[in-house]
Amino acid sequence: MSEQTIRIIIAGPRGKMGKEAIKMVTSTEHFSLQAVVDTKNAGKKLSDLEDQPNLDIPVYDDMVACVSEVEADVLIDLTKPDSGKKHLQIALEYGLRPVIGTTGFTDQEIADYSRTAEEKEIGAVIAPNFAIGAILMMKFSQMAAKYMPDIEIIEQHHDQKLDAPSGTAMKTAHMIKEVRSNKRQGHPDETEDLQGARGGEYDGIRIHSVRLPGRVAHQEVLLGTTGQTLSIKHDTIDRSAFMPGVKMAVETVMKLDTLVYGLENLME
Amino acid sequence: MSEQTIRIIIAGPRGKMGKEAIKMVTSTEHFSLQAVVDTKNAGKKLSDLEDQPNLDIPVYDDMVACVSEVEADVLIDLTKPDSGKKHLQIALEYGLRPVIGTTGFTDQEIADYSRTAEEKEIGAVIAPNFAIGAILMMKFSQMAAKYMPDIEIIEQHHDQKLDAPSGTAMKTAHMIKEVRSNKRQGHPDETEDLQGARGGEYDGIRIHSVRLPGRVAHQEVLLGTTGQTLSIKHDTIDRSAFMPGVKMAVETVMKLDTLVYGLENLME
Amino acid sequence: MSEQTIRIIIAGPRGKMGKEAIKMVTSTEHFSLQAVVDTKNAGKKLSDLEDQPNLDIPVYDDMVACVSEVEADVLIDLTKPDSGKKHLQIALEYGLRPVIGTTGFTDQEIADYSRTAEEKEIGAVIAPNFAIGAILMMKFSQMAAKYMPDIEIIEQHHDQKLDAPSGTAMKTAHMIKEVRSNKRQGHPDETEDLQGARGGEYDGIRIHSVRLPGRVAHQEVLLGTTGQTLSIKHDTIDRSAFMPGVKMAVETVMKLDTLVYGLENLME
Amino acid sequence: MSEQTIRIIIAGPRGKMGKEAIKMVTSTEHFSLQAVVDTKNAGKKLSDLEDQPNLDIPVYDDMVACVSEVEADVLIDLTKPDSGKKHLQIALEYGLRPVIGTTGFTDQEIADYSRTAEEKEIGAVIAPNFAIGAILMMKFSQMAAKYMPDIEIIEQHHDQKLDAPSGTAMKTAHMIKEVRSNKRQGHPDETEDLQGARGGEYDGIRIHSVRLPGRVAHQEVLLGTTGQTLSIKHDTIDRSAFMPGVKMAVETVMKLDTLVYGLENLME
Repeated sequence: MSEQTIRIIIAGPRGKMGKEAIKMVTSTEHFSLQAVVDTKNAGKKLSDLEDQPNLDIPVYDDMVACVSEVEADVLIDLTKPDSGKKHLQIALEYGLRPVIGTTGFTDQEIADYSRTAEEKEIGAVIAPNFAIGAILMMKFSQMAAKYMPDIEIIEQHHDQKLDAPSGTAMKTAHMIKEVRSNKRQGHPDETEDLQGARGGEYDGIRIHSVRLPGRVAHQEVLLGTTGQTLSIKHDTIDRSAFMPGVKMAVETVMKLDTLVYGLENLME
Repeated sequence: MSEQTIRIIIAGPRGKMGKEAIKMVTSTEHFSLQAVVDTKNAGKKLSDLEDQPNLDIPVYDDMVACVSEVEADVLIDLTKPDSGKKHLQIALEYGLRPVIGTTGFTDQEIADYSRTAEEKEIGAVIAPNFAIGAILMMKFSQMAAKYMPDIEIIEQHHDQKLDAPSGTAMKTAHMIKEVRSNKRQGHPDETEDLQGARGGEYDGIRIHSVRLPGRVAHQEVLLGTTGQTLSIKHDTIDRSAFMPGVKMAVETVMKLDTLVYGLENLME
Repeated sequence: MSEQTIRIIIAGPRGKMGKEAIKMVTSTEHFSLQAVVDTKNAGKKLSDLEDQPNLDIPVYDDMVACVSEVEADVLIDLTKPDSGKKHLQIALEYGLRPVIGTTGFTDQEIADYSRTAEEKEIGAVIAPNFAIGAILMMKFSQMAAKYMPDIEIIEQHHDQKLDAPSGTAMKTAHMIKEVRSNKRQGHPDETEDLQGARGGEYDGIRIHSVRLPGRVAHQEVLLGTTGQTLSIKHDTIDRSAFMPGVKMAVETVMKLDTLVYGLENLME
Repeated sequence: MSEQTIRIIIAGPRGKMGKEAIKMVTSTEHFSLQAVVDTKNAGKKLSDLEDQPNLDIPVYDDMVACVSEVEADVLIDLTKPDSGKKHLQIALEYGLRPVIGTTGFTDQEIADYSRTAEEKEIGAVIAPNFAIGAILMMKFSQMAAKYMPDIEIIEQHHDQKLDAPSGTAMKTAHMIKEVRSNKRQGHPDETEDLQGARGGEYDGIRIHSVRLPGRVAHQEVLLGTTGQTLSIKHDTIDRSAFMPGVKMAVETVMKLDTLVYGLENLME
């Protein structure tokens, strides 16, 4: 395949996601890293930064300066909510297709940016979660819930995680709720001899959170009906798990002329 | 819910599937079993048959006689290919909506029966597999294969099974092949120190068949990409696993006015 | 192998366990079923009983009469606590080796019966649980807990089960407690946004109970430490799961000259 | 606990295992890192080495010089077979307890070193595998094989692994062979429609090797018998998985006065 090279600027190169994105972009044949935008290190080269590949790529601290001077097709933003919004705005103005990985957009903001993208006929992607496998797991769980409405979720994380259940478990339960009426699961007369044994309950769905050293980030959605069970499981080993999603977003944003919110809406 | 009662005739009451279907129909509130068709036992009552519920339901050995004398909405046929086709034909002629669970239909036959159903504006379902969970597993595997094209299948069955891989594993691989180009998986230089360790290969997909006492029928489809894996698993414990699918087919066929082949095509 | 035939009497032939035991004994080459003891059906043959093999084996309602008239080596008792104790006593008196599958023995009773067995130099087994795989799971979990003390238990059962956690989960936790000091698991500051999400707690061990249609009886013990997890899982599909344990007890009791309590103590 | 501090020398600080060991030793309260032995970097401090903690710990390139000048209780050697043997010899001579993580010792060498350790009444440990969880998995599989002799092994690794099956899978099969007579598994008439589907065969045991991106190193041993299965699974996420074993070896070697080969022989 002679795919055309996509020229890329990355904002947020020092974060964990940013480092992975630099690795991914510089090792993908039809991607070309043109510049990075970093609040520190302006005027240096990527090779001057710690833990970065030895590449002669310019570092800017100002997005406007960067997009004015550097030829590029796509901006990958892996910074923080505030700068994510600013960068998105600038990218749209300067005709760069933004792939934004930050959270915190209101519905109103999404509507506004969508209008801008449409007017300019330029593709844009905002994705609070780039883990393709997790998105598929949630989508399939929702689809299956219509046919197998008895559902429990088991999520497992390392024992340094502070909150339970995980955000992904709650998001999965919300998505299932949209397609399933509240359902009392288990036997109507069931009892708990040990409080909490039956897990947390959200709209009838039971959620169990396991915390153990040696685990990273895992979730299994169990759906049961007469004589059978279906289970859909996602295992993550590290932050590189987000890269197939970033890559897909970059490739897809080139073909879009509107703003798409949520990686799931890029997937058929 | 005040659902209207669906009146049902079951053909093949002595087979394992037939017995489960009689249990399911007689225990579903808005279903009513009107008659059974059996090559033996004509003129008896269901209660005269071995291992059947003690119900005063007539047994016919002739389908035409049955549908002429008995008021019914749906025919559930769980017999054999030959009689399945005959019963389908008769049902369409007599205005009964057929749900046929036999295999062996050619594309031509499906086209012919579809035309008849369309002319008569009567719903019909032919489903070689009623296991809802297995159908979802195959469908989701196919959908996910576009985003995570490295795939291996592990199927596990009891150790009395003669063939390997299972029909479901092969069907899954076929469905994945439709959406994925042939892909050499694993390391290009990988070697097998023990022949067969890497499993059977179909279009690049590796298939592993486990046979152990204590297992029933299970399949897991494993999809991997950078930093993550997705696994979709279906476990069956006995033939009752087919009943949610039969039930769904009966409920859906009432709303159809064409023939649908394959349970997957009844599911959104 | 020319193993010597072991002649067997079974008490409790109408229960689910009893039926499975009759199937197992009559299909094991070096076992011979000599008689059954049943509170009903005295004077009949096994072939007269419902759902039993068509065998010409005498049915007694009195254990003393049975052991006086029938030549046998082993008594398998699958009745209820009260009759289990009576039958054990009679077997020891009449020189028959008892394999007792009932619960409810006090420590004092076990001590008393042990003394009797020792005096008579006759083997005896009392086993409240015959599921070999479950016993191995519990034993291995206890062994591993010394090296991997962070532990969570996930048990899954059908949704008709009334109590949670299961008896096996609690027994496993008790056994782990014997070898591990109480340990606060998870992050010291962890919080539950959904009450019960982190499961029930017993001595620091977290226990999660899943209840779904399509499940039978399953338990997984998860042990984690730096960079790795070990999980030990037992799946049961039906009551036949108890038969390998009954068979092993029968074969082993022939070589014993004392009473052994608990199948785990027959296993190395 | 007022455990006495154990003073430690580490040989091989630049390897992956060495780096993890330095992290583990310097973060364990009752361990004290006294020096490191490295073929390069003699005369420097640990803080001068790349990717190492900023600690003022001397680096030696000569083991004899190191043990002559530095007070220590235990030598952790994570170098290569040749230097591992040399270092073991020197440690025993100088009264330092060696914990050797290299492979390649012949039976004769182990016997010779054992005699030396015994004469000097000094503890020593040689462990080709420090993954505690993997050792438990193999040990439990062997123990269970006596009671559940139908066994299949599924191992899963990243798709850059060249060989199949993994060394751990073969070692597990060897250990099972020691306690189980060769057993033809599956149905006597079973056939493979896809060559390799039933996996590799070793002494009747079936071994399946899965290779997928997103996996690290995993193995599941499946044991089946009537009505039940037992599965024992080990998951590794990175090389830190070896550290609990190194730590246990260091703590245990202090109480030994002989040489022990294999971590499994330190575990009860």
